[in-house]
Amino acid sequence: MKRIAVFTSGGDAPGMNACIRAVVRSAIYHGVEVYGIRRGFNGMIKGEFIKMDSSSVSNTIQKGGTILKSARSKEFMTPEGRQKAFEQLQKHGIEGLVAIGGNGTFAGANTFYQEHGIPCIGAPGTIDNDLYGTDFTIGYDTAVNTALDAIDKIRDTADSHERVFFVEVMGRDSGYIAMPCAIGGGAEIVMIPETHTPIDMVIDTLQNGWKRSKTSFIIIVAEGDEEGHAPDIAAKVQASIPEMDARVTILGHVQRGGSPTAADRMLASEIGIGAVEGLLNGKKNVMAGIVNSKLVYTPFLDTITKRKLINPRYNRMVEILSV
Amino acid sequence: MKRIAVFTSGGDAPGMNACIRAVVRSAIYHGVEVYGIRRGFNGMIKGEFIKMDSSSVSNTIQKGGTILKSARSKEFMTPEGRQKAFEQLQKHGIEGLVAIGGNGTFAGANTFYQEHGIPCIGAPGTIDNDLYGTDFTIGYDTAVNTALDAIDKIRDTADSHERVFFVEVMGRDSGYIAMPCAIGGGAEIVMIPETHTPIDMVIDTLQNGWKRSKTSFIIIVAEGDEEGHAPDIAAKVQASIPEMDARVTILGHVQRGGSPTAADRMLASEIGIGAVEGLLNGKKNVMAGIVNSKLVYTPFLDTITKRKLINPRYNRMVEILSV
Amino acid sequence: MKRIAVFTSGGDAPGMNACIRAVVRSAIYHGVEVYGIRRGFNGMIKGEFIKMDSSSVSNTIQKGGTILKSARSKEFMTPEGRQKAFEQLQKHGIEGLVAIGGNGTFAGANTFYQEHGIPCIGAPGTIDNDLYGTDFTIGYDTAVNTALDAIDKIRDTADSHERVFFVEVMGRDSGYIAMPCAIGGGAEIVMIPETHTPIDMVIDTLQNGWKRSKTSFIIIVAEGDEEGHAPDIAAKVQASIPEMDARVTILGHVQRGGSPTAADRMLASEIGIGAVEGLLNGKKNVMAGIVNSKLVYTPFLDTITKRKLINPRYNRMVEILSV
Amino acid sequence: MKRIAVFTSGGDAPGMNACIRAVVRSAIYHGVEVYGIRRGFNGMIKGEFIKMDSSSVSNTIQKGGTILKSARSKEFMTPEGRQKAFEQLQKHGIEGLVAIGGNGTFAGANTFYQEHGIPCIGAPGTIDNDLYGTDFTIGYDTAVNTALDAIDKIRDTADSHERVFFVEVMGRDSGYIAMPCAIGGGAEIVMIPETHTPIDMVIDTLQNGWKRSKTSFIIIVAEGDEEGHAPDIAAKVQASIPEMDARVTILGHVQRGGSPTAADRMLASEIGIGAVEGLLNGKKNVMAGIVNSKLVYTPFLDTITKRKLINPRYNRMVEILSV
Repeated sequence: MKRIAVFTSGGDAPGMNACIRAVVRSAIYHGVEVYGIRRGFNGMIKGEFIKMDSSSVSNTIQKGGTILKSARSKEFMTPEGRQKAFEQLQKHGIEGLVAIGGNGTFAGANTFYQEHGIPCIGAPGTIDNDLYGTDFTIGYDTAVNTALDAIDKIRDTADSHERVFFVEVMGRDSGYIAMPCAIGGGAEIVMIPETHTPIDMVIDTLQNGWKRSKTSFIIIVAEGDEEGHAPDIAAKVQASIPEMDARVTILGHVQRGGSPTAADRMLASEIGIGAVEGLLNGKKNVMAGIVNSKLVYTPFLDTITKRKLINPRYNRMVEILSV
Repeated sequence: MKRIAVFTSGGDAPGMNACIRAVVRSAIYHGVEVYGIRRGFNGMIKGEFIKMDSSSVSNTIQKGGTILKSARSKEFMTPEGRQKAFEQLQKHGIEGLVAIGGNGTFAGANTFYQEHGIPCIGAPGTIDNDLYGTDFTIGYDTAVNTALDAIDKIRDTADSHERVFFVEVMGRDSGYIAMPCAIGGGAEIVMIPETHTPIDMVIDTLQNGWKRSKTSFIIIVAEGDEEGHAPDIAAKVQASIPEMDARVTILGHVQRGGSPTAADRMLASEIGIGAVEGLLNGKKNVMAGIVNSKLVYTPFLDTITKRKLINPRYNRMVEILSV
Repeated sequence: MKRIAVFTSGGDAPGMNACIRAVVRSAIYHGVEVYGIRRGFNGMIKGEFIKMDSSSVSNTIQKGGTILKSARSKEFMTPEGRQKAFEQLQKHGIEGLVAIGGNGTFAGANTFYQEHGIPCIGAPGTIDNDLYGTDFTIGYDTAVNTALDAIDKIRDTADSHERVFFVEVMGRDSGYIAMPCAIGGGAEIVMIPETHTPIDMVIDTLQNGWKRSKTSFIIIVAEGDEEGHAPDIAAKVQASIPEMDARVTILGHVQRGGSPTAADRMLASEIGIGAVEGLLNGKKNVMAGIVNSKLVYTPFLDTITKRKLINPRYNRMVEILSV
Repeated sequence: MKRIAVFTSGGDAPGMNACIRAVVRSAIYHGVEVYGIRRGFNGMIKGEFIKMDSSSVSNTIQKGGTILKSARSKEFMTPEGRQKAFEQLQKHGIEGLVAIGGNGTFAGANTFYQEHGIPCIGAPGTIDNDLYGTDFTIGYDTAVNTALDAIDKIRDTADSHERVFFVEVMGRDSGYIAMPCAIGGGAEIVMIPETHTPIDMVIDTLQNGWKRSKTSFIIIVAEGDEEGHAPDIAAKVQASIPEMDARVTILGHVQRGGSPTAADRMLASEIGIGAVEGLLNGKKNVMAGIVNSKLVYTPFLDTITKRKLINPRYNRMVEILSV
């Protein structure tokens, strides 16, 4: 393999640049040429290829976002779009790909491989952490720390005013972000898609707390909780407890940005190197991940279809720690 | 004057603890006893007085929120409530007050002084900065830096995805927080209550930007802008530019919390000392503030009725810097 | 077991408070009384015991340092001292102990158990991460992120002035802190006790870099490196490369403090609960740790005598990533 | 004036990039071409000029360091060096200069103007704040906040271990950085070049503190204090108080880097615009600064020869607040 390309796709995540850097530098280290493709699959179709050298990734390890930019591509979802992408890759002599992204990215890469046979290795770049085949995804640790930092600030006000705060964090399908925010943020309740926390239980917990003269509460809500979004949940609780002084904060896009943490830089670097060395060793159609501190390659199909389960201890921890 | 009391009232602001600490320690330094009143005017009515010594404020200068807690008091708005508060102060031998808060706090303190004659000096503790009689209010610098830090993170995503972000910051009546967020955050547009930025102008700016191949935009919206809240404004713009990929973030209560910046700790310390020394020098019914680096005392009536104007240069700066 | 006690010993580490909190609340959750012992073994000898309830650990999870304070105790190293400590524990009816600290703490606890038979479980609280029996120690992730944040700032100056920076981080016996600082900080060279990096190799790397027109360098030095401290190393290199513009920064005690990261709060919480539940299940003379995401108990003797090895991949990663 | 150039010189400071950005964009706004000169006076001599457009400063406002790099120039100290610089400016058609730096930069610019008559306006970019003609210099607020953040972390350890910490901050000739670190960091003693704090007074303060059962102390030392550097001072105090458990931390270069605070971004932006508009209005040989919220121009000669005095209230504040 003489020339490979790297791109980012889907929602951006802190550490994507650290991963791009690791891909570029390990390719160079192994004597392989490396290109960056801008704007994900869209740029692949349109031929937005740029030659990368060691200095093109200097001073990027600490940066949030992605220097290669990211975009959604409807065209790549069609066979015609993928054909165009394939022709661009051939034209530029690209023999292998590293795709940094999440589930959707790997599904696209999987289909592309079936049709055109260009080896591709995925790097799990998403703040959501809901990817099978890796203990942590690139960006997750940073997102959790960003959210927790915000929750620490909110607690200042919650304590000062003796209020109930409903804080919505990211997580459409999982409580991966919500759970450490709840445990690390000293929250009394956590509401996540994986487990059902009925509104009545929230009301009970608040009322029991007041009886024990607890005066401020933080409730962490994953955006995909089955009871609704934080404003809806707060409204329902308020209806039952009119005297409650409740506030709602939706952390939103802030969670996607910022300089990656040490753990995310390490993870992104290891996986970036692992992706390149995997390609050179003939691996294809797999995602590189770290499980129990070891580099593993998981078939794209498994990362798309299998579900990583949140640690069941965590619900119990919230219960114990808010005693 | 042998015994004074200090309390916080209204919305909490970073630096309130630094101010309480300065009041407590300068009182002790001048040989005056000092009490803390918990939960603002409410606690005054209910008699929540605690004796403070030097160590009761140890290790608090860096903390957000208020260790004395804050609350709204409907009862203090009635003559009967104020009478009860007066009786509590007499019972505890309090001869002077330091009130840390904003406009509403000073209005209450002003009425209270008219009726009961207990000298009170105000300390401007609010993130909004919209108080006449001081260049900056305690908490403002921290709130702006917190908001700016969030905007830096959002820009990572805006750049990576080439999106338009509408970011709503605090400021019901003024653009004091919005303006440095816009200038310091490299925003293209700022929408504040003081000046009218019509939706059409926003649309024009975006379209002109795209023509110049600018691909990501940040628009800062003060919550009190006359065109509505950020989601409304984004929806209106979206209706005219369907191809725009817009996102909305409301920073919310995060802006109130956190460890105070150096400037807020300095300001809170200077004003806290100035409030106590003002009381000891016979001042009353005034707010202590810093104007052009000098300690000044401004009658409560002026702080309530006069308006501090935002620097008119700032609008021009946003225009120049987004060229 | 009806009453246990918790204490911190040795150097403080971020997350110790989160661990104290988890011990206190899980004891209460399981119906066990819990005391805090102030100032480690010293306080145990002197009888500094305080009854803890749920609210005594409210709002502490985010705080650096240790609310129970820590101290060295020469007296506990003598049989007489340990006898006094034992008598105090008996006097207060303490039937089990949770010791939060490092190697020295566990060695003391081990001896104490041999002599007096009071069950003790250790929690690994040290920024150094060099404890056998847990993947990570409480405080390590925070210390690394604090150091990395400082290195990011130093790189601003290194880049602007095209200088060589020698940055010394903590780690008397290991490169656990140095290694992620080097990889995550984009350093060109890392010098750690575990591997020998001769001065000549440093000089070569710098000179090769300049040939490739690289103009700024960061060299991370663990304080225990066999070539000496950062100032010594810088002086030796300077002697061979007089034209080099070198600067030295020793990060020092800053690395011990600060609000714990999400990972440290989670780890401290899990281990704190695990320590209490271990005691209740009859475990003794072991350290609770997390290995491959699972709670494990390791005999004190192993934690004291066995060595945890730094991942050998890491040296290679530094080499690849600075290509 | 049709073409100007901007450069940074001397030690780097956070906000220099925000100032470069403001110079570039306000020049473009006023229809003036603008070049960046890399590596200060050195690059001017060597002809390192680059054409700047609006996008060359995109996404730089939040970055520490200087994208134009900085360097010392011995050659510019000679008439021959300055003649070469002048020829380069003429060759590139540069009619005006904006010099971002400190005292030394302005002294060089002043001499250059006397000899060659090219109008130059200075922007005060230095973390030291010791420049006459502006209330604050660009980078000062960030440096103070960075130092304070480190001191907050150190206090965690000081409190936990009941130790005395001597923390050395930058300031060879002034206590501008030390003073807010002491007041905002809750330090007991501050030692700055402007006032003499004898070692005996330090010893007295510590011993009095212990008598009042105060157990931890922080002493802030400006690097230029006449009693020596922090390690020397600590050693002298230790000699008199052998039982003291003292630690020393030198914050060092960390203080120069990092993302600029809101205040520094505002200041840099205002001064950058003011420098360009000053040049266009015929000003020359002056520094643009902000005094009492107003833009003022001060002759270079005054900025070099006059001394800005630290607020005398501050010493008293330290005394009162550590009561």
